[in-house]
Amino acid sequence: MKQSQLFTKTKKTISEQEPSINAQLLERAGFVSKLMSGVYSYLPLGLRVLTKIENIVRQEMNKLAGQEILMSGLQPKENWLQTQRWDKVDILFKLKGAGDRDLALGPTHEEIITPLVGQYIQSYKDLPQYVYQIQTKFRNEARAKSGLLRGREFRMKDLYSFHTNEKDLDEYYDKVITTYLRIFERCGLGELTYLTFASGGIFSKYSHEFQTVTQYGEDIVHVCLKCKIAINKEIIADQSSCPVCGNQDLKEEKAIEVGNIFKLMQRFSDAFSLAFTDKEGKQQPVVMGCYGLGTSRLMGSIVEILHDEKGIIWPKEVAPFHVHLISLAREEAEIEKAEQLYLDLQRVGIEVLYDDRAGVQAGQKFADSDLIGIPLRIVISAKTLAQNSVEVKERAKSTAELIEIDKLVEFINRD
Amino acid sequence: MKQSQLFTKTKKTISEQEPSINAQLLERAGFVSKLMSGVYSYLPLGLRVLTKIENIVRQEMNKLAGQEILMSGLQPKENWLQTQRWDKVDILFKLKGAGDRDLALGPTHEEIITPLVGQYIQSYKDLPQYVYQIQTKFRNEARAKSGLLRGREFRMKDLYSFHTNEKDLDEYYDKVITTYLRIFERCGLGELTYLTFASGGIFSKYSHEFQTVTQYGEDIVHVCLKCKIAINKEIIADQSSCPVCGNQDLKEEKAIEVGNIFKLMQRFSDAFSLAFTDKEGKQQPVVMGCYGLGTSRLMGSIVEILHDEKGIIWPKEVAPFHVHLISLAREEAEIEKAEQLYLDLQRVGIEVLYDDRAGVQAGQKFADSDLIGIPLRIVISAKTLAQNSVEVKERAKSTAELIEIDKLVEFINRD
Repeated sequence: MKQSQLFTKTKKTISEQEPSINAQLLERAGFVSKLMSGVYSYLPLGLRVLTKIENIVRQEMNKLAGQEILMSGLQPKENWLQTQRWDKVDILFKLKGAGDRDLALGPTHEEIITPLVGQYIQSYKDLPQYVYQIQTKFRNEARAKSGLLRGREFRMKDLYSFHTNEKDLDEYYDKVITTYLRIFERCGLGELTYLTFASGGIFSKYSHEFQTVTQYGEDIVHVCLKCKIAINKEIIADQSSCPVCGNQDLKEEKAIEVGNIFKLMQRFSDAFSLAFTDKEGKQQPVVMGCYGLGTSRLMGSIVEILHDEKGIIWPKEVAPFHVHLISLAREEAEIEKAEQLYLDLQRVGIEVLYDDRAGVQAGQKFADSDLIGIPLRIVISAKTLAQNSVEVKERAKSTAELIEIDKLVEFINRD
Repeated sequence: MKQSQLFTKTKKTISEQEPSINAQLLERAGFVSKLMSGVYSYLPLGLRVLTKIENIVRQEMNKLAGQEILMSGLQPKENWLQTQRWDKVDILFKLKGAGDRDLALGPTHEEIITPLVGQYIQSYKDLPQYVYQIQTKFRNEARAKSGLLRGREFRMKDLYSFHTNEKDLDEYYDKVITTYLRIFERCGLGELTYLTFASGGIFSKYSHEFQTVTQYGEDIVHVCLKCKIAINKEIIADQSSCPVCGNQDLKEEKAIEVGNIFKLMQRFSDAFSLAFTDKEGKQQPVVMGCYGLGTSRLMGSIVEILHDEKGIIWPKEVAPFHVHLISLAREEAEIEKAEQLYLDLQRVGIEVLYDDRAGVQAGQKFADSDLIGIPLRIVISAKTLAQNSVEVKERAKSTAELIEIDKLVEFINRD
């Protein structure tokens, strides 16, 4: 993409009412625009990142045999009455539809997926099933001042699993844990993200969260560095040692919750009479699990953690482009070479943001590039062209090197 | 995908309260599930079709230099007051957010895109711009009994263009018309879809719709068969001859509106003071166009038109799979050959729904296949294997032929 055509521009400052780092950087760099607290538009650069995150999640869900569907935001009150949650969930947006019908905007979809899947499950032969969606969710938060971390409207992946028995659920649940850790690894947060034991509510001993350690976190966890797991502070009174190894030397850290998973057991099957006929011909309740991962929240978390004073530092797999090609060319012949390089890189499948803007100073181009945070910066100028080269610098490093243009593709693809 | 694992099953009948053909067939075949009037869940087969339609639209928008973004469903009342539409748009869903704030659920996004793009437009050098999204829209329809044709929640592509002058808008608008006709062609409705002159409101002589002729249509148009254009009945009193060739011999037809485009001119620029500095340094209003295309409505329209008494007949580019491989194998060795063929076809990039269900009669498999409507049916059985062949039948044709397994890929890719 040519930067001269991109409709967004970087901003020097944005409103000081926006204290969170992720919102500041994402809005200044032109990834998102705030419409109101907790509600954002995703602009071209931002939608590219969000789509890459969602495609990683989609790939990993498909590997788990997940079948993708798309449910609605609008949900009938009756379904929420059936689980006795209409009056209990305080962040539920409520509205009236035609014919004075009471509706909610879905913050989660247990009330919809359970009867939906129930249409197709009769016998034990129809189980297990794994169904997920990547979709827009709504939560009427009292306060929403953390940018993409706490949205009133946000993007989320929710997977639901349906089993004949608890053992089958347990096995799948463990596979999902492994998959989640791989997703956070691929999104650049692997080393800082811990499987975290949290309150299980009334159905299980624990639920599990995935908490990413950062000084900017809103949650507090106690980390066991031996086992690489954590315990949410909310249950530390009941569980003050590592539930895996018994280690009592835990480290208190601030963290952001980037995912959470629950064994729902029969909570929703009971409410909607979701049952199957077993091998003996008896009716049995379906056992369920649910697995949430906020994709826009993950995008915000990446920025909250991976940045420096100049801007964002995107991990490779989720960066809006692989390469930021910056032209400082002035003469016609130099400009032609820059254009050619832009086309050549794209031809071999390298995604390029090409800063072809005329009349913008080098210093401004470099500052914009650092703010936007594409992993590899490539500068082409009269000086580098005199050596048939370009200057290459990783966003995360301070040193640059000259690379011959003929060897550039090989260099970019070296890992 | 193995059909034995697909969580949906076909249904013999659905509620008679659902009179529309598209909803009947899509729900019976397992593409969608109705949650309430005008609100549907897209199940695995249905989401595959919707995604294919949306990817066609995305490709074509990108060719028009459109930059993709994603705006929110939640919209603040203030924006609708600024265009004086808060009390005028009767299908607007209204709700209260935290702090008693009045919100709408977006049925369209002029109120959001205009100030959003305004953040980045200062000079004539920043224009033109073309920005689109593919997103979920909400309309509080009094009645919604046409399946995917009239949704309370539905999927839509909306493109907005921003220009320095009317001539530039006119040129882009004409390009969009060509693009829209290509989209409907690719979705299998090319021959039946007409550029249609409709009421322009107070800003232009005409707006334009794209109307697909079918006996099941809700609109009435008058078609000029010479020019391949139509006139919406709503303006036939003002315009009773073909506006292109003057032909008065027009044919009245029922039709479904599958797209509509407007020259908005300064209607929204004025409301939000969206202006640019021209070459002489003077402030000028930005001239706008908007271009809608309901992707879920298009999916419903395709079914409404392309079906027979047995089920849906998907056009190739939007079919959930390219091939429906039906195994009637019973012996172990035959089953292995069917599995191998399933893997081989996928390996060369052919999308296969593989009916591997054990214990389901051939008649039921054929009926399901006709209902689901994948373009090519391939039957593998002891009988066909005796000739090292499979039986191939196009969904739209009544005759089948034997094709040697070695030549099958070539046959499938023949066009």
